[in-house]
Amino acid sequence: MAVYTDLTDEELRDLLAAYDLGEATALKGIAEGVENSNFLLETERGRFILTIYEKRVAPADLPFFMRVMETLADAGFPAPRPMRRRDGALLSGVRGKAAAIIAFLKGVSPRRPNVAQCRALGETLARMHAALADFPETRANALNIAAWADLVAPRLGDAEAMRAGLGAALSGDLAALAAAWPADLPQGIIHADLFPDNALFLGDALSGVIDFYFACTDALAYDLAVCLNAWCFDGRDYNITKGAHLIAGYQSVRAFSAAERDALPILCRGAAMRFFATRLADWSATPAGALVRPKDPLEYADKLAFHRRAKGAEDYGA
Amino acid sequence: MAVYTDLTDEELRDLLAAYDLGEATALKGIAEGVENSNFLLETERGRFILTIYEKRVAPADLPFFMRVMETLADAGFPAPRPMRRRDGALLSGVRGKAAAIIAFLKGVSPRRPNVAQCRALGETLARMHAALADFPETRANALNIAAWADLVAPRLGDAEAMRAGLGAALSGDLAALAAAWPADLPQGIIHADLFPDNALFLGDALSGVIDFYFACTDALAYDLAVCLNAWCFDGRDYNITKGAHLIAGYQSVRAFSAAERDALPILCRGAAMRFFATRLADWSATPAGALVRPKDPLEYADKLAFHRRAKGAEDYGA
Repeated sequence: MAVYTDLTDEELRDLLAAYDLGEATALKGIAEGVENSNFLLETERGRFILTIYEKRVAPADLPFFMRVMETLADAGFPAPRPMRRRDGALLSGVRGKAAAIIAFLKGVSPRRPNVAQCRALGETLARMHAALADFPETRANALNIAAWADLVAPRLGDAEAMRAGLGAALSGDLAALAAAWPADLPQGIIHADLFPDNALFLGDALSGVIDFYFACTDALAYDLAVCLNAWCFDGRDYNITKGAHLIAGYQSVRAFSAAERDALPILCRGAAMRFFATRLADWSATPAGALVRPKDPLEYADKLAFHRRAKGAEDYGA
Repeated sequence: MAVYTDLTDEELRDLLAAYDLGEATALKGIAEGVENSNFLLETERGRFILTIYEKRVAPADLPFFMRVMETLADAGFPAPRPMRRRDGALLSGVRGKAAAIIAFLKGVSPRRPNVAQCRALGETLARMHAALADFPETRANALNIAAWADLVAPRLGDAEAMRAGLGAALSGDLAALAAAWPADLPQGIIHADLFPDNALFLGDALSGVIDFYFACTDALAYDLAVCLNAWCFDGRDYNITKGAHLIAGYQSVRAFSAAERDALPILCRGAAMRFFATRLADWSATPAGALVRPKDPLEYADKLAFHRRAKGAEDYGA
């Protein structure tokens, strides 16, 4: 929710001169994401998001993300197409930072997704996996099980201070994940961050999936587990109706294997740990009384508590 | 540059149900202004800015601002039209705060206005004054000469700490303004904050004037003085070419009187004091090391230094 890099008139003109998009007719900084500077850019040829990549995105990873988006757009999947420059490049430079101009997609992110939207999201997730099945590149998931332990283990005291008993519970989670994390599930390119913020809807119809800056190679069913965490809780409570629809939507496009189904509880527990881990680290790094508070890690501590109790895939609606 | 109030899907739907604008097809928080929460709202009927008014705008003043904008839009002036609800009202309520939906205007705010843009701004300012000549309401200028003294006099020590000698210079400015501030110039509705941020251009053609939340009744020539300060300095130096074009543009629509011309130096000095005063107050109220730094008051201290030396209207290009 910040614009870190502003653009002068000359910088905008120079940037657009490298593309075949005409002149700018509107430019508004938009308050989305905390990672990058984003602008709604309107030109004579259409509407776009202009993103200037700030410190959190590794420049070396950007071409991968751009090609994932372009591959999806080529396949008719509702991902935003990155515009190519006249010289064919997908990325530009602005003030020494990488920048991209990406198609604007219509739609509104649901604040509280309903059952129909959960089903549409599941279908779309499976379509995305299918559209990327032949994608020739890979990118390791930097936020994998080893990273969660690295982030959480040194901060168990902070977690305990947030809620009595949480430190011990997290130690148990990390041990259980290390013991049971599946290594042989079907892999592919996953979004890895498909929260409602990153989906656009027109009514109950999904019109866009955005923000591919965590895309990586990992278990396809782990992507589903991220979505079950992000879409199917009403407060602390797992909404099994939403979960069943999300899973049924996914399976209507891509049926998962018995191994994937059996792994759902541990995958969901791992996905909850992944978001708990980065939120805990951001929380610990933010001084008390800071103007901008990071997201509350305890939301994911509550979700972890549900996953700890889950007996099997049927508890998720599968 | 902040969105303070977010909207749930239900709140957005309820809000739109009061208007004849169709369903939302996009909603993006935009990073403009520090006063209110602003969203780019696209519906089936067009594009709009949805503003939720936060603490700095007095709710009692909002109907005045809305009617100023509507009067201008009715006159064909490029101000954004506030949309009327089905019940005829110009304002709505969201979470106990006032909200308005206002037409989106195309254009880009110039970061460094050029001479042609200064001329266009001068013409447009005079057209705005003419279009509001018969406006039946008045609103006192809360940031008048008395307010500048109230803001600056208790903070002369802070100013002196910023720059040696500034405290005494400001005392002299306040005394000179009190002695010479003109009381009998032609009055009308003025914008009072027409910075380049609040003007939109397509190339050198002015396509919009926005942000009427300081509009009030005051000397028309004071509005011109605000613009000379905001548009015609290149760093510390007054650019007399830009000033001459801005003034000539204004006079091409509305010739000013001899009294207005003679008053230009004191009006410009007062306008610079007005922005220095609020910036100084914001600066003094912000703890050192805060994440968000307010605008630097010294920009306006430099402008005051120019006005202190000016001999007459000819020094401004009049």
